[in-house]
Amino acid sequence: MTARVPRVAFLGPDATFSAEAAHEAVPGGELEPLPNVSDVFAAVRDGGAKVGVVPIENMIEGSVNATLDELCFGPGGAYVRGEIRLPVTLHLLGPSGSQPSRVRTVRSHPVALGQCRQWLRTHAPQADTEAETSTAEAARLVSLTRAGDGEVAIAPRLAAERFGLEVLAADVHDMPGNATRFVVLGTSMAAATGADKTSLVVFFGDDRPGLLLKVLEEFALRGINLTKIESRPTKTSLGEYCILFDAEGHPAEARMAEALRSVHRHVAELRVFGAYPRADGIAPQVSPSDTDAAYTEAVTWHRRLLDDVDAPG
Amino acid sequence: MTARVPRVAFLGPDATFSAEAAHEAVPGGELEPLPNVSDVFAAVRDGGAKVGVVPIENMIEGSVNATLDELCFGPGGAYVRGEIRLPVTLHLLGPSGSQPSRVRTVRSHPVALGQCRQWLRTHAPQADTEAETSTAEAARLVSLTRAGDGEVAIAPRLAAERFGLEVLAADVHDMPGNATRFVVLGTSMAAATGADKTSLVVFFGDDRPGLLLKVLEEFALRGINLTKIESRPTKTSLGEYCILFDAEGHPAEARMAEALRSVHRHVAELRVFGAYPRADGIAPQVSPSDTDAAYTEAVTWHRRLLDDVDAPG
Amino acid sequence: MTARVPRVAFLGPDATFSAEAAHEAVPGGELEPLPNVSDVFAAVRDGGAKVGVVPIENMIEGSVNATLDELCFGPGGAYVRGEIRLPVTLHLLGPSGSQPSRVRTVRSHPVALGQCRQWLRTHAPQADTEAETSTAEAARLVSLTRAGDGEVAIAPRLAAERFGLEVLAADVHDMPGNATRFVVLGTSMAAATGADKTSLVVFFGDDRPGLLLKVLEEFALRGINLTKIESRPTKTSLGEYCILFDAEGHPAEARMAEALRSVHRHVAELRVFGAYPRADGIAPQVSPSDTDAAYTEAVTWHRRLLDDVDAPG
Amino acid sequence: MTARVPRVAFLGPDATFSAEAAHEAVPGGELEPLPNVSDVFAAVRDGGAKVGVVPIENMIEGSVNATLDELCFGPGGAYVRGEIRLPVTLHLLGPSGSQPSRVRTVRSHPVALGQCRQWLRTHAPQADTEAETSTAEAARLVSLTRAGDGEVAIAPRLAAERFGLEVLAADVHDMPGNATRFVVLGTSMAAATGADKTSLVVFFGDDRPGLLLKVLEEFALRGINLTKIESRPTKTSLGEYCILFDAEGHPAEARMAEALRSVHRHVAELRVFGAYPRADGIAPQVSPSDTDAAYTEAVTWHRRLLDDVDAPG
Repeated sequence: MTARVPRVAFLGPDATFSAEAAHEAVPGGELEPLPNVSDVFAAVRDGGAKVGVVPIENMIEGSVNATLDELCFGPGGAYVRGEIRLPVTLHLLGPSGSQPSRVRTVRSHPVALGQCRQWLRTHAPQADTEAETSTAEAARLVSLTRAGDGEVAIAPRLAAERFGLEVLAADVHDMPGNATRFVVLGTSMAAATGADKTSLVVFFGDDRPGLLLKVLEEFALRGINLTKIESRPTKTSLGEYCILFDAEGHPAEARMAEALRSVHRHVAELRVFGAYPRADGIAPQVSPSDTDAAYTEAVTWHRRLLDDVDAPG
Repeated sequence: MTARVPRVAFLGPDATFSAEAAHEAVPGGELEPLPNVSDVFAAVRDGGAKVGVVPIENMIEGSVNATLDELCFGPGGAYVRGEIRLPVTLHLLGPSGSQPSRVRTVRSHPVALGQCRQWLRTHAPQADTEAETSTAEAARLVSLTRAGDGEVAIAPRLAAERFGLEVLAADVHDMPGNATRFVVLGTSMAAATGADKTSLVVFFGDDRPGLLLKVLEEFALRGINLTKIESRPTKTSLGEYCILFDAEGHPAEARMAEALRSVHRHVAELRVFGAYPRADGIAPQVSPSDTDAAYTEAVTWHRRLLDDVDAPG
Repeated sequence: MTARVPRVAFLGPDATFSAEAAHEAVPGGELEPLPNVSDVFAAVRDGGAKVGVVPIENMIEGSVNATLDELCFGPGGAYVRGEIRLPVTLHLLGPSGSQPSRVRTVRSHPVALGQCRQWLRTHAPQADTEAETSTAEAARLVSLTRAGDGEVAIAPRLAAERFGLEVLAADVHDMPGNATRFVVLGTSMAAATGADKTSLVVFFGDDRPGLLLKVLEEFALRGINLTKIESRPTKTSLGEYCILFDAEGHPAEARMAEALRSVHRHVAELRVFGAYPRADGIAPQVSPSDTDAAYTEAVTWHRRLLDDVDAPG
Repeated sequence: MTARVPRVAFLGPDATFSAEAAHEAVPGGELEPLPNVSDVFAAVRDGGAKVGVVPIENMIEGSVNATLDELCFGPGGAYVRGEIRLPVTLHLLGPSGSQPSRVRTVRSHPVALGQCRQWLRTHAPQADTEAETSTAEAARLVSLTRAGDGEVAIAPRLAAERFGLEVLAADVHDMPGNATRFVVLGTSMAAATGADKTSLVVFFGDDRPGLLLKVLEEFALRGINLTKIESRPTKTSLGEYCILFDAEGHPAEARMAEALRSVHRHVAELRVFGAYPRADGIAPQVSPSDTDAAYTEAVTWHRRLLDDVDAPG
C-alpha cells in the first residue's frame, strides 16, 4: 500500500515563481497549475487539491488583489495555513546560440518587463518589448523561435530548464532584493508554533470613524504587533473599505483570542482567514503580562473574587 | 423563635450623620457606635458586626482618608457592599429658651464650623468658636449648660433629639446641597443588579509612566465609565501613589470581568474592595457590543474558529 | 488677444472614462491623452500641461497602484488639487447593424470584461473574449470590422461616438453603482473651502510598532476623520510599507496643521501630496474645541500664562 | 544702602517642619508664621510677603486639602514656584531631667501621634496621649511643666531648641523615611531649567466620561510623564471632581505648551497653578521628536508646505 501523493494547485502556468513556491510548500507533491487565483481557491475548497499556492504580494508591485479579494469575499472554506517568501531573480533567456547584442524582441509579463527597464535601456536599447500573459508564456513563445530571430524572454531560471532555453544574461532585474510572498491554502489553519501570524479582515459596517483606531488599540493593549495593514474596497460603494491585518500571534493564544473576540464584538464582520507559522520563524517578544499563563492566572484570580460576591437574587 | 437583629457598627458617636446612615443601611438594626474608622472595619472583619457604616467622602471636604486607607491597605475581609448619600444640613442648637442674639460660644466639629462660617459672621459675629471632636460631642457639652450661658452647638437635627436641645436656627450651613457619601461594609460584595458600581485600587509597582493611561484605556475600550478617580500615597516613598477608581458595572458582568482581569495582568496589584448597587439607581448605557450577550456570542464564535485550526503537534 | 486654453494631460487613450474626467476637470480645456500615469505626472511637473487627470481608485478594483506610487515615490512637484467621481457604465458596442445574438468575439480591457462576466454568460454564452489594452482600443479594433463579423466591444458611451459604433446593449455591467475616482493634478494644492480633504503618505522608518497607532491618535484627538487608509510596499524590503491617508480637512486649518506637524515630528517622512475640495462637498462636523477660533484662543491663553513666568536666567 | 530682607510667610506656628521649609526656601529671609494655609496664600497675593511656604503632601497622610483647595479654587495671583522635600523625623521631647520611663502624658498633633503609635505602645504603654493643634503647640505646653510632671511632646528637633526642651528619645516615628513636600508660593512661576514640573487642575464641566482619558492622551502623545494625579470635589455636587496633575516639563517648552493649549481647548477650565524646578533635579528624558527643536522644525516644514497651497479666494 502506498501513501497518496498530495495534489498541490497553484497559479500557473508551469515554470513560474508560483511553481517554485508550490514545490517548496509540498516537496514531492503533484503540482497542478491552474489558470487563475480563483481556480486555486476553488480547488482547495472542493477538495480537488489538498493544498493551494498563490502569490499575495510582491516587494515592488504590492498586493495581488485577486488573492486578497478571494480571502475577503470568497465563500470561505479555504484558509491561509502557510507563507513562503521567494527572491525574485529574472534572467534573459533565449534559444541556444543567441547573441545578446542582436536582440530584437524581448517578451515577458509586463511586471517583469517593468522590473528590468533600466537593464534593457542600457543593454538592448534598440529592442522592442512585447507583453505576454506570464513569464512562462514568454519563454514558451521564445522557445518556438531560432537563435537568429533575435527573440528573447525575461523569466525565472525554472523557465529555461522547462523550455530548453539558454541563460543569456543573469540577474537582469534593476532592483536587487526583490521578493514575492506566497500563501499556502488548505481547509484548516495551522496549529500554533509560538512564531505565528494571524490574518484577518474587518468590515466596519456603518461609517463609524474611530472604529479603526479602536481595533488597533485592541491589539496594542495586548502587546500584539501588526505586521501589515491593507485596505480593499468593499465593492458596495466608492469610499467604503474593509481593512486586512496580519497580526503577530495565533488565535489559540490567549492574548490573540481575547483581541479577536473583542474586535468581533465591535465590528460588523471579522473574518479570520489564516493562521500559520511565520516564514522567518521569528517569535514575538511577549511581555510577562500578555502570556497565556498571565491570562490563566487572571481567570483564577477573578473566579476567587466572585466567590466573595453574594449569589444573585 | 425570633430573628436575630443584625448588629451595625458605625463611626460614632451617636447622633451624627453616620448614625443616620447606619439607620438607613439597616432599619431596625442594633446600632453600635465605634470610636474610629478602623474599629468599624475590624468589627466587620471579626464578625462582631454584620454590617459597618463609615463616611467615605463629603461634597465639600473630599475623601475621608481613614476610610480610603483601610480599603487600600487594610488586611482585607471587609468589602464595600452598599453606598448611602445623605444631605448635610446643620442647625444651631441650644438649651430650650436660648436666644440666638445672646450666643457667646459656638461648639462643633471644625469641618462643620467651617461650613457655617458665613452664617456665623452675619448672625453671631461676636461669638467664639470652639472645636470639638464631633458635632454630637458639641451638642452633648451644650446640653450640660443653661440657656443663659450663651453656649450653642452646630449639629444635625438628630443631635437635638438625642440631647434634648432646641433648634434655634435651621440650615445654618453656607453652601446649600452639601452631602456626604457613606459606604456600607460587609464580608461579601453585593450581587449584580444592573445598576452597580465596582470600587478598586491599583498599585503600579515600579515607576511605569503610561500604565495609568493603559488602565483607563482598558475600561474605556469596554465602554465602562469611571465615576471617580482618586490617589493615595503608598506610604513607602514620597511621590508614589496608588489609584482608586469607582467604575460603572459589576465584576460579575462580562465587560467588567474582562477589564478587571486585564488590569490585574498589567499592574503590581489590583484590589477590588467593593461592588454594590448605585445609590442613585441609574443603570449605565451599555452599547450592544459590550453586553454579556455580545461577550458570550464572541466566545462561541472564537470556539468555532478554533475548530478550523489543526490540533497541536 | 485671446485667453490661452489650458492643456489637460490625462491617462489615454481618448474616449475612455479618463477623458470624461479630464473634460469635467477643465471644461473647454485642450485634452492631451498620454500613454501612462507617469507621463501625466511628468507633464504636470514639467509644465507641459497645466492640469493632469489620472484614475486613483475604482469601487470594484481598488486603487490604481501606478498613481499611488507616483504620489508616494515620485520626484514631487505635482499635487492632487481636485477629485472627480464618475459612475462606470459599460455598454456593448458594435458596427451599425450588428445583431447581439450573433456575437462571436467580445473585446475589452480585462477589468471591463470581468465586470460584465454575468451579463456575457447569459446573453452571449458562445462568444470568445479578447483582452485589449483599453476599452477605447477595443472599440477602435471593432470599428475596423463589419457588422457581419460578429465582433463587439465593451466600452463607455464616449467610445461609441468617437469610433462611430452603435450601442447594441446598454448597461451591461453586472454590478450597478460602480464608480471610479480620478484625481486632478497641478503644481499647487487647492485653497481651503471648508469641505476639503488632505492626502498624505507616512514612512515609518525603523520598524516601530505602535507608530501607526500614534499617527491615528494624532488625527483622532483633533477630531479629524480619516476617510481612507491604504498601504503600499516601500519597495526596499518585503514586509515594509508606507501608509497613505485621506483626512478630512485642510493643511491651512489649525487642527490639521497641528496634526500634520505632530505626525511630521514622529515619523521618518511625511509627504502631503494633496489638498482639495471634496467631490461630495460635505463639510466635516467640527467640535467647538477643534475650530480655528478655539486654537487661536488657546494660543492667546498660553501667551498670557507665560506673562506670569519669570524671564529666563 | 541695604538690601531688603524678603519676608517669607509660612504655615505656623514657629518651630515646625514648615518653618524649616521656609528657612530652606529663603535662607536669611524674615520668617512670618501665619495661622492657616489661606493666610499664607493671601499674604503672597496681597504682597504682604514675597514668598509663601505651605505643606502640600505627606508621604503617609497624603495631600493637604487646604493647600489643594487654595490652588484649585483660590482667587489666583499666587503660583507654585518651588518645591521642598523634608524628611519627617520625630523626637520625644521633655523638660531637662525628664525620665522616659516616667512619662504620664504625651502631647502632639494627632498625625504625629499616629506616626509614633508603635513606639509609644512599646516604650510608654501606660502614658495618655493628648491631641494638640500642632507639634509646636505641644512642645510649648510641655515647656510650661517640670521634669517631674511626666509630660512630654512628640515634635521635630527645631521645637526642642525653640522651647528649651531636651531630646529624650530620637527618631520615635514608626515608619522610617517619612517625608513632607512643601510648595513655595510667589506671584509668578519660575523660569524653565530643563528639569521642571508644571502643576495644573482641570475642570471637566458637563459630565463627559472619556475626557480624562483624552487629557492623559494629550500628555502621553507628547512624551510628558505625569508624576501625580489627584482629585478634589468641585464642591458643587457630590460626585463631581476636578483633577490635579503634576507633569514633567515647563509651560515654556514646546511640547508642554502644545499639551496645555490642547487640554485648554477640550475642558471647561484649565488652571495652571505652578511651574518650578523639581526638588530632585532630575531632567526628563525627551525623545528627539518631542524637543523644542523638533517642534520648531515642524513649524518650518508646515510653513513651506503652505507655500504650495493656492491663496484663498
